[in-house]
Amino acid sequence: MQKKAIILLSGGLDSITVLAQLKNQGYQCYALSFNYGQKHNAELNAAKKIAAYYQVEQHKIIDLGFASIGGSALTDEHISVPESPQEGIPITYVPARNTVFLSFALGWAEVLNVQNIYIGVNAVDYSGYPDCRPEFITAFQQLANLATKAGVEGPGIKIHAPLIKLSKAEIIKQGVALGVDYLQTVSCYSADQLGRACGVCDACRLRVAGFEEAQIADQTYYQ
Amino acid sequence: MQKKAIILLSGGLDSITVLAQLKNQGYQCYALSFNYGQKHNAELNAAKKIAAYYQVEQHKIIDLGFASIGGSALTDEHISVPESPQEGIPITYVPARNTVFLSFALGWAEVLNVQNIYIGVNAVDYSGYPDCRPEFITAFQQLANLATKAGVEGPGIKIHAPLIKLSKAEIIKQGVALGVDYLQTVSCYSADQLGRACGVCDACRLRVAGFEEAQIADQTYYQ
Repeated sequence: MQKKAIILLSGGLDSITVLAQLKNQGYQCYALSFNYGQKHNAELNAAKKIAAYYQVEQHKIIDLGFASIGGSALTDEHISVPESPQEGIPITYVPARNTVFLSFALGWAEVLNVQNIYIGVNAVDYSGYPDCRPEFITAFQQLANLATKAGVEGPGIKIHAPLIKLSKAEIIKQGVALGVDYLQTVSCYSADQLGRACGVCDACRLRVAGFEEAQIADQTYYQ
Repeated sequence: MQKKAIILLSGGLDSITVLAQLKNQGYQCYALSFNYGQKHNAELNAAKKIAAYYQVEQHKIIDLGFASIGGSALTDEHISVPESPQEGIPITYVPARNTVFLSFALGWAEVLNVQNIYIGVNAVDYSGYPDCRPEFITAFQQLANLATKAGVEGPGIKIHAPLIKLSKAEIIKQGVALGVDYLQTVSCYSADQLGRACGVCDACRLRVAGFEEAQIADQTYYQ
């Protein structure tokens, strides 16, 4: 029986790398994306193209009423995306975002009878979001098997975060070795409708530095 | 400063009791309900009336694309709500429902700067859903403070489940002592648009037995 996985697919650099890894390992992939009111919804268009390119079994895009909660520069029209580094957890943090995303993945995994969930979080070259750290993944893993029928009566569901300890440069190198076309991806928090990047937001800075460190040409179109 | 709480408000018997407790204790309440494709959405109408009656500060109803995941008799048109008791975790279990609900509550708590989340789950007279048990609440509590800015940089967020160890009869008695009008509530999984109950689903059976044990007249309209 072919191995199956649900993958959270944002349309960014990290999740495409995880998807390429999974396809390379022979997984059947079910991609999950969210329309959560992000200003940079060019990433959703990227996610659609990536899902099609990698021939996932199914690509589900869930509409969330996240924007109505507000409180983040990524979803709130009244808060600008910062163009320079911030102290502490930045204003681009979306309250409980990865908790919500993984919760949906958990529900879908139960329905599909899939035992693996992959998320491309990274805790090295990252923005300092609490829900990207190993201790968050560990806590969610514990919750996952207590919260679900699959955990209590079934085989359990495993949360995988294969990039969590890699630098951005290492992620890019792994992706390039697997033939990933990073031009398909959108990292920028302020990307325009065509996916063109601002070059100055936190996500752009991490991306630019990653390509530099990897000594790989970054073909991203910066505005 | 007045104490503040977010409360998950379903429109059913348990959550109205928690809301009455909170108002009685002087809390400012922020009610959160979900339109998750439940067939018995008469409960949402009940939630709206209850929220208005108790003069909550705000009542947010979030639309979730849950029905598109399917896999539950409560959301899937192709699965009927059982009319007799089931073995194990019943088909009315909605995959990862309370995990998703609490995740949203967590995000909203951060944005509102509220430190308390209340959920009316109960693990005595209940349907055997894994995400109603004390170990689930404990695991979510652990996750909550690792997942959020409020947990890492702030005062933390506390998950309260004040009914978790009470019998249905005890819950009803507490509610009646606080003046709760249970006629406002909808428990039935197959309630019609007017909120009239089937009397035979799992939720109805627990409700009927609870009123009997409490020796309080059940004025619910059964079809």
